[in-house]
Amino acid sequence: MDEGLSGGDLSRLRRLNALAVIGVLRGERALTLTEVARRTGLSRASTEDVVRELLEHGWMTEAEPTAGTVGRPARRYRFHSDAGRVLGVDIGGHKILALVADLDGAVTHTARTAVTLKMGRRQRLAAVDRTVNAVLADAGLAATEVWASGVATTGLVDATGRVMLSEALPEWTGVDVASHVGRLVSGPVLVENDSKIAALAESWRGVARYAKDVVFILAGLRTGAGLIIDGKLHRGFGNAAGEIGSLPAARWVQAPDHLRSWTGDGSHADPDTVMEDVFLAARGGDRKAASAVRRYVRDIAVGASALVLALDPELVVIGGGFSRSGDLILEPFRRELDRWCIRTPEVRVSGFGDEGVALGAVRLALNHVDSVLHRRGELASPKQFLAGGRSRDRVEP
Amino acid sequence: MDEGLSGGDLSRLRRLNALAVIGVLRGERALTLTEVARRTGLSRASTEDVVRELLEHGWMTEAEPTAGTVGRPARRYRFHSDAGRVLGVDIGGHKILALVADLDGAVTHTARTAVTLKMGRRQRLAAVDRTVNAVLADAGLAATEVWASGVATTGLVDATGRVMLSEALPEWTGVDVASHVGRLVSGPVLVENDSKIAALAESWRGVARYAKDVVFILAGLRTGAGLIIDGKLHRGFGNAAGEIGSLPAARWVQAPDHLRSWTGDGSHADPDTVMEDVFLAARGGDRKAASAVRRYVRDIAVGASALVLALDPELVVIGGGFSRSGDLILEPFRRELDRWCIRTPEVRVSGFGDEGVALGAVRLALNHVDSVLHRRGELASPKQFLAGGRSRDRVEP
Repeated sequence: MDEGLSGGDLSRLRRLNALAVIGVLRGERALTLTEVARRTGLSRASTEDVVRELLEHGWMTEAEPTAGTVGRPARRYRFHSDAGRVLGVDIGGHKILALVADLDGAVTHTARTAVTLKMGRRQRLAAVDRTVNAVLADAGLAATEVWASGVATTGLVDATGRVMLSEALPEWTGVDVASHVGRLVSGPVLVENDSKIAALAESWRGVARYAKDVVFILAGLRTGAGLIIDGKLHRGFGNAAGEIGSLPAARWVQAPDHLRSWTGDGSHADPDTVMEDVFLAARGGDRKAASAVRRYVRDIAVGASALVLALDPELVVIGGGFSRSGDLILEPFRRELDRWCIRTPEVRVSGFGDEGVALGAVRLALNHVDSVLHRRGELASPKQFLAGGRSRDRVEP
Repeated sequence: MDEGLSGGDLSRLRRLNALAVIGVLRGERALTLTEVARRTGLSRASTEDVVRELLEHGWMTEAEPTAGTVGRPARRYRFHSDAGRVLGVDIGGHKILALVADLDGAVTHTARTAVTLKMGRRQRLAAVDRTVNAVLADAGLAATEVWASGVATTGLVDATGRVMLSEALPEWTGVDVASHVGRLVSGPVLVENDSKIAALAESWRGVARYAKDVVFILAGLRTGAGLIIDGKLHRGFGNAAGEIGSLPAARWVQAPDHLRSWTGDGSHADPDTVMEDVFLAARGGDRKAASAVRRYVRDIAVGASALVLALDPELVVIGGGFSRSGDLILEPFRRELDRWCIRTPEVRVSGFGDEGVALGAVRLALNHVDSVLHRRGELASPKQFLAGGRSRDRVEP
């Protein structure tokens, strides 16, 4: 034994080992002791010690043995994702969507409420209340049983969870979203811009999960971007990264106008559905609609190219409401990128449709749970997780 | 003692501790054992063990005791930066600059050769040979005694050290810079684009050294950018990050034209000096020159704003040849950023003048030395460092 290792060094090592074991178990179905040892690089003896402690504390459970094997099957263990619940909320222009998920991010319950672009602050927040309460009731979950909540909103969000600037929704600038949702649930409430959150979801378990540097574009009434750099969400020093849309030369402000100005049958377009209507008509063969979509894509591609030239990402992902029409957008978009970029990255359409933002909000909540686990000196039991009380501090994802 | 720790765990720990001690010593003058223990967080006993081993191997030396203290002064130790030498080279349009530095990056010798924009490949490479040989001779250094070399060049560089694309210099696209310099020196040769390398220098020991996210702009005949994200150089998936200049809307291609088209006395401007001439005249009160500088700054600020909006950095640094005229540029540049950016970051001018690129090339070489130290299973002695032979593999900075 090395005489140089102090007691402090050893307990630090034990905690790191415990987190390493939890790390390899998360997202897996079940692993044997041998598999855990191999994936963590720990010795068999260290692994047994750690597993024993995690089982005692309730972070791990034994899984059912594999059926049909000859002789006594090896014991298998899994992370006890059922030990807690998180909430993810998407506050949008057309809908409020709320998800309840376990500690692995598996969604257990959802609730959705339709809203309109024109709604003021009070009406929209009331719809948030209804949606969150509905999903909690559905999940049989008390407010105090929510470990952490992630909330996505349009607009730039500051470190306290307040909307710094929103140009899309009336009366939305200045709304203290964190405080408002904090009256509905226990635990910390993390608030972030929807484009950034959707990028998080894509990087976590979407089409971007194997890429380290990704430009994610949330295409909708407004166009936003989220940047994943070195596998992590890049927020920026003032939490304002990705806002290339503010530069007129990037053409994102005017892009949706091409779609808005199309009125297929001459009537006034319903602002809440006009964008989808254009894509539908284009797909159906309407030439004016197809032309409007082409002009839209051409403008979106300028700002996207600026981001690609700046970051040289491995992958660009188009998500949001329009990604359902991804087939119409993808090829024209790639051709436009070829015009401007030195190296055109791979381009893919998100598979999450309009649920990516809410899923990312779940991830935001789970990131907080993870950071608390890593920060604590001792690895407390799950029951003690909420004992620390509410905190509004921002944590790095 | 914890029975769970294997022999492998312990030697891994010992090596990490050794690297931690080297880490706190680098860049410091000298530290006592107590100071080393405090900064690494290691126990006194662990620290003594590690220091003994590093002294034996030659990575550390004892420093002179502090004069004038009462009683026996505590022994002080420093990193043995003298144990090796690295080379940094800047291959530019107007000059070749070569630096020799020790393992802490302290420059010991320099050599500079003037070249012109119009030179072809053979002439420019011959000038590189002369400059490198001159600085090695000056330093009394044999080619085989160079631990690693960093080389900066205009243009985009691929992972093998070849110039992928250069629009600034004739016959420069396709030059295998790594191989060429590899004939002059031993050890690995790391080649990178000059804007990226200058950003590295600024982040290492320049005005950007306390910032985590930085946009560095190399302002000269061509404008380039280097991005520091989370304290590290961001190269991009295809090594093409920062190339916002390729987007016409960013206005970087035409920006220098405002300066080039100024002819103070009506004669043909010397392409090698016209840019400096304009700044000199503007500083002297020439109104046409001042107007040309203003238009130049306005165009540079558009591309810069695109990068700032994309990344939301803490700091923007203007470096390169024009930074000597930083006082003329800074205020107009800040005002233009205010027009376009949501949050205008701090803006500073580099203090390295036209030597920042070469200094960054030294850092590139040192990053390679560091990565080799961290990769090895055992921490070999300095003498054995070069025994591994030449390798051209690219390493992460």
